[in-house]
Amino acid sequence: MAEKPSIVSVQDLETNQAKWVSLKKILWKDHTGKQRVWEAAERRTRGSSGIDAVAILAIIRSRRDAFPLSTVIIEQYRPPIDKFIIELPAGLVDEGETAEQAAIRELEEETGYISKKVLDSTALLATDPGMTTANMKLITLEVIFDDKIESPAQKLEEGEAIVKRVVALKSLYRELKATGFVVDARLNHFAVGLEMAERLKDSSS
Amino acid sequence: MAEKPSIVSVQDLETNQAKWVSLKKILWKDHTGKQRVWEAAERRTRGSSGIDAVAILAIIRSRRDAFPLSTVIIEQYRPPIDKFIIELPAGLVDEGETAEQAAIRELEEETGYISKKVLDSTALLATDPGMTTANMKLITLEVIFDDKIESPAQKLEEGEAIVKRVVALKSLYRELKATGFVVDARLNHFAVGLEMAERLKDSSS
Repeated sequence: MAEKPSIVSVQDLETNQAKWVSLKKILWKDHTGKQRVWEAAERRTRGSSGIDAVAILAIIRSRRDAFPLSTVIIEQYRPPIDKFIIELPAGLVDEGETAEQAAIRELEEETGYISKKVLDSTALLATDPGMTTANMKLITLEVIFDDKIESPAQKLEEGEAIVKRVVALKSLYRELKATGFVVDARLNHFAVGLEMAERLKDSSS
Repeated sequence: MAEKPSIVSVQDLETNQAKWVSLKKILWKDHTGKQRVWEAAERRTRGSSGIDAVAILAIIRSRRDAFPLSTVIIEQYRPPIDKFIIELPAGLVDEGETAEQAAIRELEEETGYISKKVLDSTALLATDPGMTTANMKLITLEVIFDDKIESPAQKLEEGEAIVKRVVALKSLYRELKATGFVVDARLNHFAVGLEMAERLKDSSS
């Protein structure tokens, strides 16, 4: 029977013992020529694409306008935060993959949804540039159904427990506010943008 | 004379030598009860607020509708990425500060703009929950002028070189796409949300 994930212990980890991440000491010269030190974390998994990760904005639509434009968000326990987090589907780019291929693969694994059309790929984005070297792309994928939103089975890896939730885009901001879960910052910024545009529209009409 | 910042050297840093960040080895039990290991980076600077950082969405408006609703974004060199990055104004929460106080302080330091009204504070957000323990809030602040957008002097700390740029919200997505700089993922997600809402409006009318 499923139980709630939990932390057993947390201890300092030295870079020379770490498999997935490392700390870097960056010596740099500022705009006056003065030498300074910056400390940053780095993923060890970046491949030849030069891209650590992708997040996926799935645009789920009906061929017959039978339901509102929707997207899919996921809930999963994240040990670094020790909480369930609501995020866009996302994952690391495997060696030999493009960002778009990784996005299509991760969307199917985490949600079961199959996309046959890439609607947009951002330029390379800095994930948290004050603290890490991590980078990512946001890939917008189209998912089409005829009349109703289907729910194909996920293809989760062993040990993964991900709950997917389909939300109409126009309700996303409100649903994120109403949930008891912690929200990923990037997903939340997207939702704030959606909501802000609604207010801009109201104020200009 | 100002020169372009540059990297002098990058080397592995052990957690026991790091001042600002650390690596953590997290032993956790998944939903089946199986013990697993997660590696994460952590800031050492979190104070009693429990909040690492804030980002600031400044809503710059005219008392007399003399200019469109605007916001301010900043450009600065980020050693972890070795590039100039475009971000929302942001900063760490100092000990004894609330998130809102930190936001008002950082906005004035980085842009010169003084806000007297907090329009919105998000719940605590997970910055990059697969890789770090970092958390943040997005604080929306009002900045009002009568007829034109003023440009008060920044209050930068020694060694900081930050260029501010005021952008109409309705042009933000296009301006970020057009710039040659790398964009912070959170700012970009906000801009994608703004733009997506425009398309939703067009498709429903």
